[in-house]
Amino acid sequence: MTGKQKVAVVGASGYTGEELLRVLARHPRVELTAVTSRQYAGQTINQLLGAQALAVNLTLENLDPASVSGRAEVFFLALPHGVATEYAVPLLKAGKVVIDLSADFRLKNAGKYQEYYQEDHPAPLLLKESVYGLPELYREALKNAQLIACPGCYPTGTILALAPALRYKLIRPETIIVNSLSGVSGAGKQAGVLYSFSERDENMMPYSVPRHRHIPEIEQELSNLGGEAVAISFTPHLVPLVRGMLTTVVAELSRPHKQEEVQKIYEEFYHHEPFVPVLPSDRLPETKRVLRTNACEVAVRADSRTGRLLMFSAQDNLGKGAATQAVQAFNVRFGYAEATGLL
Amino acid sequence: MTGKQKVAVVGASGYTGEELLRVLARHPRVELTAVTSRQYAGQTINQLLGAQALAVNLTLENLDPASVSGRAEVFFLALPHGVATEYAVPLLKAGKVVIDLSADFRLKNAGKYQEYYQEDHPAPLLLKESVYGLPELYREALKNAQLIACPGCYPTGTILALAPALRYKLIRPETIIVNSLSGVSGAGKQAGVLYSFSERDENMMPYSVPRHRHIPEIEQELSNLGGEAVAISFTPHLVPLVRGMLTTVVAELSRPHKQEEVQKIYEEFYHHEPFVPVLPSDRLPETKRVLRTNACEVAVRADSRTGRLLMFSAQDNLGKGAATQAVQAFNVRFGYAEATGLL
Amino acid sequence: MTGKQKVAVVGASGYTGEELLRVLARHPRVELTAVTSRQYAGQTINQLLGAQALAVNLTLENLDPASVSGRAEVFFLALPHGVATEYAVPLLKAGKVVIDLSADFRLKNAGKYQEYYQEDHPAPLLLKESVYGLPELYREALKNAQLIACPGCYPTGTILALAPALRYKLIRPETIIVNSLSGVSGAGKQAGVLYSFSERDENMMPYSVPRHRHIPEIEQELSNLGGEAVAISFTPHLVPLVRGMLTTVVAELSRPHKQEEVQKIYEEFYHHEPFVPVLPSDRLPETKRVLRTNACEVAVRADSRTGRLLMFSAQDNLGKGAATQAVQAFNVRFGYAEATGLL
Amino acid sequence: MTGKQKVAVVGASGYTGEELLRVLARHPRVELTAVTSRQYAGQTINQLLGAQALAVNLTLENLDPASVSGRAEVFFLALPHGVATEYAVPLLKAGKVVIDLSADFRLKNAGKYQEYYQEDHPAPLLLKESVYGLPELYREALKNAQLIACPGCYPTGTILALAPALRYKLIRPETIIVNSLSGVSGAGKQAGVLYSFSERDENMMPYSVPRHRHIPEIEQELSNLGGEAVAISFTPHLVPLVRGMLTTVVAELSRPHKQEEVQKIYEEFYHHEPFVPVLPSDRLPETKRVLRTNACEVAVRADSRTGRLLMFSAQDNLGKGAATQAVQAFNVRFGYAEATGLL
Repeated sequence: MTGKQKVAVVGASGYTGEELLRVLARHPRVELTAVTSRQYAGQTINQLLGAQALAVNLTLENLDPASVSGRAEVFFLALPHGVATEYAVPLLKAGKVVIDLSADFRLKNAGKYQEYYQEDHPAPLLLKESVYGLPELYREALKNAQLIACPGCYPTGTILALAPALRYKLIRPETIIVNSLSGVSGAGKQAGVLYSFSERDENMMPYSVPRHRHIPEIEQELSNLGGEAVAISFTPHLVPLVRGMLTTVVAELSRPHKQEEVQKIYEEFYHHEPFVPVLPSDRLPETKRVLRTNACEVAVRADSRTGRLLMFSAQDNLGKGAATQAVQAFNVRFGYAEATGLL
Repeated sequence: MTGKQKVAVVGASGYTGEELLRVLARHPRVELTAVTSRQYAGQTINQLLGAQALAVNLTLENLDPASVSGRAEVFFLALPHGVATEYAVPLLKAGKVVIDLSADFRLKNAGKYQEYYQEDHPAPLLLKESVYGLPELYREALKNAQLIACPGCYPTGTILALAPALRYKLIRPETIIVNSLSGVSGAGKQAGVLYSFSERDENMMPYSVPRHRHIPEIEQELSNLGGEAVAISFTPHLVPLVRGMLTTVVAELSRPHKQEEVQKIYEEFYHHEPFVPVLPSDRLPETKRVLRTNACEVAVRADSRTGRLLMFSAQDNLGKGAATQAVQAFNVRFGYAEATGLL
Repeated sequence: MTGKQKVAVVGASGYTGEELLRVLARHPRVELTAVTSRQYAGQTINQLLGAQALAVNLTLENLDPASVSGRAEVFFLALPHGVATEYAVPLLKAGKVVIDLSADFRLKNAGKYQEYYQEDHPAPLLLKESVYGLPELYREALKNAQLIACPGCYPTGTILALAPALRYKLIRPETIIVNSLSGVSGAGKQAGVLYSFSERDENMMPYSVPRHRHIPEIEQELSNLGGEAVAISFTPHLVPLVRGMLTTVVAELSRPHKQEEVQKIYEEFYHHEPFVPVLPSDRLPETKRVLRTNACEVAVRADSRTGRLLMFSAQDNLGKGAATQAVQAFNVRFGYAEATGLL
Repeated sequence: MTGKQKVAVVGASGYTGEELLRVLARHPRVELTAVTSRQYAGQTINQLLGAQALAVNLTLENLDPASVSGRAEVFFLALPHGVATEYAVPLLKAGKVVIDLSADFRLKNAGKYQEYYQEDHPAPLLLKESVYGLPELYREALKNAQLIACPGCYPTGTILALAPALRYKLIRPETIIVNSLSGVSGAGKQAGVLYSFSERDENMMPYSVPRHRHIPEIEQELSNLGGEAVAISFTPHLVPLVRGMLTTVVAELSRPHKQEEVQKIYEEFYHHEPFVPVLPSDRLPETKRVLRTNACEVAVRADSRTGRLLMFSAQDNLGKGAATQAVQAFNVRFGYAEATGLL
C-alpha cells in the first residue's frame, strides 16, 4: 500500500493521547485529520505538547461521536473506560476501524467486567467482536479486526513475560505470583494530592491490593496461553519515575528445567518478534533502555535452588504498554511493516 | 526557665504545619496542647505523618479562634494568608503570643500588601506591632514581640545572602539581581495537574515573572539594611525536588573589593550566628547539606573580571525558610538557647 | 542509669555511618568520643554532613583498631564486610561492646558465609557469640550481648513482614516469595557509572537474581521463626529514590484464614513494639511515612480468591534497615528506654 | 538531493554520542557507516542503547583517525576536548566534513582557549576555518563549512535568549547577568561520587563560580551580535533532572521599552526559525516541553518597575544544546530541509 489512512485520535490530551500524537504525527502512512479533547479544545498540538510534534499542528476540537465520525477512517480512542464505548458503538456502526486503548472491550466475559469495574458492561455484544490488541499473540485475528481492544500496561508486561513458560508448560500455572512496578504517568494526567510531586517523589507504595482491575484481563490471556483456567496473585507498586514498568513473575518449575533450556525456549518463542527482545542469561531488563520505544525486554532465570522460574519484563507504560502497541496493532491491521513509524 | 510553654499549631496539616509538628514534638520546652486542621480533623499526628512524631500523638481538631484560644499560650499559625488574620486578631486580643508563618504581617506598608496580594489588608494596625521573624536581624525586638511575622522562604535566603554586602556597602544596591530555585513543597500540599508528579518531574521553569509576592518583603528588608530604598529583580524557578532552596544574587561591586576582604566581612558579620554558616572561599552551598535543619549556608565571591559580587545561600524552604526559623524565633522570644529543639 | 557511654563510630563517612552520626550526636546517653574514616580523615563532622550535627563537631580520624580501642567503651562499626572483622576481633578482646553493621557476624553457619561471600569467614568462632541485632526477636539476648550483628536492610523488612505469619503458622513456608524495592543509598557511597544520577534516575531494574547475599540471613531467621528449614525466592529491585525500602511477600495460606483473623494476629504480635506499627486493613505502607525514623510499617492481607497471604513492610533502608536499628539495639544492651534518641 | 551521506560518529558512547546515534539512525539522508568508542568497542548499538535504535544495529569499534577516515564522508566528533583535535586534523586533511561537538574549535582566540582550558590550543590555524554551528546566526557560512564547531549547551541557550535584544540594542550589554540550570547529563557519563544518584538527587548547587569554560564562547558570540565587546556574569547550577537546560538573563533596558514592543521584536527576529519558538507574553518556557527535540523555547519580559529586560530559554542540553543542533547544522551544510530527521 502506498496511500495514507485518515486517522483521528479521540481524547488526545491525556498522557496516552499525547504519546499517540507524537507517534502518529511521524507515521508515514498516517494522515492525522482530527484530534479531540474536551478539556483542551481550542489549543493546538504544539501548544499542548510543546515542540514535539511540529510537523502536524492540528487544533484540538471537542467533537462528539457523530461529528468526528466523518473525519477519518480509523479512530484511536484514548478515553476513560465507559466513555470509550460511547464513541466505539456509533463508529463501528459507521464502518470505521476502532482501536480502543481503554479497558472497555478487553474482557470477553461481561460478568468479570461487572465484578471489577462495578458497572454493567455498556455493550456486551461487542465483547465477542473485539480482538485483543497484543500482536505477538493475535496477529492473524488483528489483520481483519474492526474493533481492537488494546491491552492494559500491566497485562502487556505480565503476559509477555509468561507466554513461553505457559505455552511450553515450564511452570505450574497455579503458583504464579506477579509483582509490578509502575511510573506515575500510569495514573493519568491527574490532579489530586496523592499524585502530587511532593507526595510521590522519594516515596513508593503498593496499591490495589489484592484486586486490581487488570487481573481479569491477565487471567483471561494466561488461561488462553496455558489451556486451563489460571488465577494469579498480582501486586502493583507506584514508584517515583514518570514512565516505565517493570514486572517480576515467580512460579514453580513444572520439572527441574535448566537455565540453558528455558533461555532457548524464550529466545525461540520470541525469535521473530522485533519488539520483544529476550535478554541473554547475564543481563536483566531495565526500563531506561526501552523508554519511548515499543520494545518490551524480557528475561528468564531458572532457579534450581528453589525449583522456581523467574520471568522479567521491562517496558514503557505509555509505549508498549499503551500508545506504541496501539500503533503496532494498526500496522498489522492495515498490512504495513509492523515497525512502521515505531523506529 | 525550666517549665514548658503550652503551644498550639493552627493549620497543622500543610507541609509547613507538618514540619512544625516534627520540630515542636521534640522541643524540650514545648508542651503541644492543640493541633488544628480543617481538612484532617479527627486524624492523629501519627496517622497524618507516619511514625515521625511518635512521642506526641495528638488528634487534629477543627477549632475556630475562640475555641483554640484557651488551649495554649503560644500559637504558631500555618494558615493561608488572610486566614491567618482571622486567628491572629482575637488571639492577640486575648494576650497570646502569635507566631505567624503567613505573609499577613510581614509588610509594614498596607499599600504594598494591597498591590501584591490584590486585597486590602484586613488588620493594618497590626502591621505596626509585628516583628519580622528573622532573628539574625531582629533579635532584640523579638525578645518582647507579641506578634511575630515569620519571613517567607525566598526572602530569608535572599536577605541573608545580601545582608553583609548591604550593611558594609560592598555593592551598588540599585544593581541587585536575584535568582532563586525552589523545590515543589514550596507550593504547598496542592492538588492540580501543574504540581502533579508527572508534570513536575524532569521539568523546570521560571514563574511569577516579573512580580512575585515576596518582592515587597525582600525590598522592605534590603532597604532597611542598606539605609536607602532598594528595588531588585527577582526571578523564582521551580525545580524537581521536594525540599530545598538555592539563591544566587549578583550586584555590581561599589569598589574593586577583593575576595579575601569580602570573605572576611561575611565571616565576621555572621560570626556569632550558629544558623548562618559562611562557607570558605573554595566551597559553594548545596541544599542537601542543610535539609531538615535551620541552617542557611551562605557564600560570597568577588569577581574582579566583571566588577561584580556574587552572593549565594542554600536552605531548606520548610526549615530556615519556614518552620525551623519560626521555632528559632520562639526560642528568642522566650529566652531559650536559640538552638533549643533545633539540633 | 544517668551517665553517658563513650561511643565511637568506625567508618563514619558512608551513608550508614553518616546516619549513625546524626542519631548518636543527639542521643542523651551518648558521648561521641571518636569518629573514624580513611577517606575523609581530617574533615570535621560538619564539613562532611553540613549543618546536620552541629552539636558535636568532632574531627574524623584514620584510626586502626589498636588506636581507637582506648577511645570508647562501645564501638559502632560501619565498615565493609571483612574489614569489620579486623576491628571487631581486637575490640572484643579488649572487652569492648561491638555493634557491627556489616554482614560479618550475622550468619551462624560459616559455610553459608563462604558460599555467598566467596571467602572463608575470617573469625568463625565469633559467629557463636554474636547476637542478631533485631530487638523485636532477640531482645533478651541483646541485653547481655558483647557482639551485636545488625541485620541487613532487606532482611529486616522481610523478617518483620513474615514473623507473625510464621510464628502462628498462617502460611506454608515452602511457598514464600519475596520482592523488595530499594533506594539507591542501599548501594553505599559509590562512584561508578551504574550508580550515577543519569543512569539511575527514571530507571528501575531487578538485580542479584536469583542469589542475593541477604538470602542466607533471611532464611536463617525465618527458619528460626517457623521452626523448620525455610527456603525463599527473593528478588531485589533498584528504584530511583535515595532512601526507602518496600517489601512485598506472598505465600499460600495454610488454612483459609480471614482478614480479620490475620489482622488481629499481626496487631497482637507487634502490640508492644513501638517501632513496628501494624497498619489497619484499609491502609498500605508507603516509605515516605517512615523516612528518617526507626519505624518499619507492616500490613497484612488475606486474599481468599487465591488462598494466599500478602505481607508488606516499609522502612528507611538507612533507618530501621541500618543505623537507627543499631541504636535501638544499643538502647536495649544498656538498659535505656528503647526509643531513646530515636524520637 | 536524493542520496545518502556516509556518516560516522566518533565517540558514540557518551550521552551526546548516544543521542547522535538515535537521531542519525532515523535520518532519511544518513547512512551510518561507522560508530566508534574506546570503552564500549565490541558492543552493538542495541546493546548500548537498548531498543532505541533498532533500525541500525552497528557494532561500536575502536578506530583511530587513520582507520576511520575511509569509512565515511562526514564525521560527527563527540569526544572530549583535546581528543577531538586528534581526529579533526587528519580528517580535514583528507577532505572530510567534520562536525565537532567539543569545545576545540569554538573560540576564535587561541589566547582565550589557553586561559580557560589551561592548555595551548593544539591546532590554532583551524580556529580561523571553523564555523560556529549555530544555524540561526551562521546559516550562510555553514552551507560551505568543512569544519563545524557545534556550540556548547549553555552558550546555545544564552545566545538565543539574548540575540534579538543585542541586535536591536534593547539592552545595555554591560549589565548582562546570566543564570543557567542544567540537568546532570550535561556532566557526561561520569563515575564519581559527586555525580552519583544519592548525591545529586534532592540536591542543587551552583558551580564553576565565577569562571566557567563557556564564558569566552558566550562573550565571543554576544560581542558579534552587539557589535561591541561584551562581558557577562554567568552562573551555572546543577539540578536533579537528567536532561534539560533553563537560562534566565537579566539586563538593563536601554530605553523604557514596553512589553508589546520587545515581544514583537523577538517574534519577528525568530519568525522564520522553526527551532526557536517565541512564547507569547502570558507563557514562560519549561524544559519538559522541549525534551528530545531541537527546539529552544524563548520568552522575553520588559519589567518597567525595575527598567530591566528578562530573557528566558529552555532546551534539551543533549538536543538543541548538542546532538540535534549538530544534525541541524549537517542539514544546512548539505542543503537538506533543516528539519530533516529532527521531527
